[in-house]
Amino acid sequence: MTFYDASVPAFLQILGSLSGLLSKAEAHCAAKNIQPDVLLGARLYPDMLPLSRQIQLACDFAAKSCARLAHVNVPSTPDTEKTFAELRQRLAKTGDYLKSFTAPQFEGAEGREVTFPAGPDRTVTLKGQQFLNNFAFPNFYFHAAIAHGLLRHNGVEIGKRDFLGVK
Amino acid sequence: MTFYDASVPAFLQILGSLSGLLSKAEAHCAAKNIQPDVLLGARLYPDMLPLSRQIQLACDFAAKSCARLAHVNVPSTPDTEKTFAELRQRLAKTGDYLKSFTAPQFEGAEGREVTFPAGPDRTVTLKGQQFLNNFAFPNFYFHAAIAHGLLRHNGVEIGKRDFLGVK
Repeated sequence: MTFYDASVPAFLQILGSLSGLLSKAEAHCAAKNIQPDVLLGARLYPDMLPLSRQIQLACDFAAKSCARLAHVNVPSTPDTEKTFAELRQRLAKTGDYLKSFTAPQFEGAEGREVTFPAGPDRTVTLKGQQFLNNFAFPNFYFHAAIAHGLLRHNGVEIGKRDFLGVK
Repeated sequence: MTFYDASVPAFLQILGSLSGLLSKAEAHCAAKNIQPDVLLGARLYPDMLPLSRQIQLACDFAAKSCARLAHVNVPSTPDTEKTFAELRQRLAKTGDYLKSFTAPQFEGAEGREVTFPAGPDRTVTLKGQQFLNNFAFPNFYFHAAIAHGLLRHNGVEIGKRDFLGVK
């Protein structure tokens, strides 16, 4: 087992399941005559981010975290997606990006220092393992699970198995 | 870095932050004259589990997953908590249980097989690393983040920093 095994596949699993959630959400819109924009813009509370941003942030935390761990340039992706199809494409592209990493790039990454922005005016430096545990995973799963909760709250018929990506 | 470092501290961080979320939720109830039972029983959708169960399940996924990885008896905890204080106690006890594990107990656990129930009538066997990535973490973070979203949806003034346990 390698540090690659501890990181990249975990992100990939949930990126895939989020794509499935969006497909069910889109079908729900069609079945219930809901404008897709309404669900894409839905929020759990007025000062929370809408569904589309939750998905974009999950993608960003996956892609940027892996880049930081592998010490390659951190990708920057404009948040332009306006439809379910475009968000699924963003998820797929993020997945393709993650699949481009190789286990040797992560060799020793658990002990290497990662410096990352934590808020607009400060950076934090952590060893790779702590970065993954304390920052990357909790942020990534947070946005993914909030997206799921938001869809559930809006009546989309999904369950935890959809979130886990279990058949 | 060890497999212990990849698992136990990640759970501990969020167990601690959930305790903080519950304290803010309790203070919110007091300030807004909300019966605590109402918030403890709140759901994001009628067929979702209420706040108290989300917390209990986060505790269970943390405790049971670590037990399975260390190949010790899997603890069973009755879900009797009825107040914010009792739920914080459950979180604290779960944290104490996790702190009782030692790094040597997790040595080689990433490659050891774990067999666990997945639904009422079947078990799944995975290597420890996959069990952690594919099952333990996503389930644990799911219930923790749903609890957070549920509190946010009910107007409790918390943010992602509270979820991450960042000061």
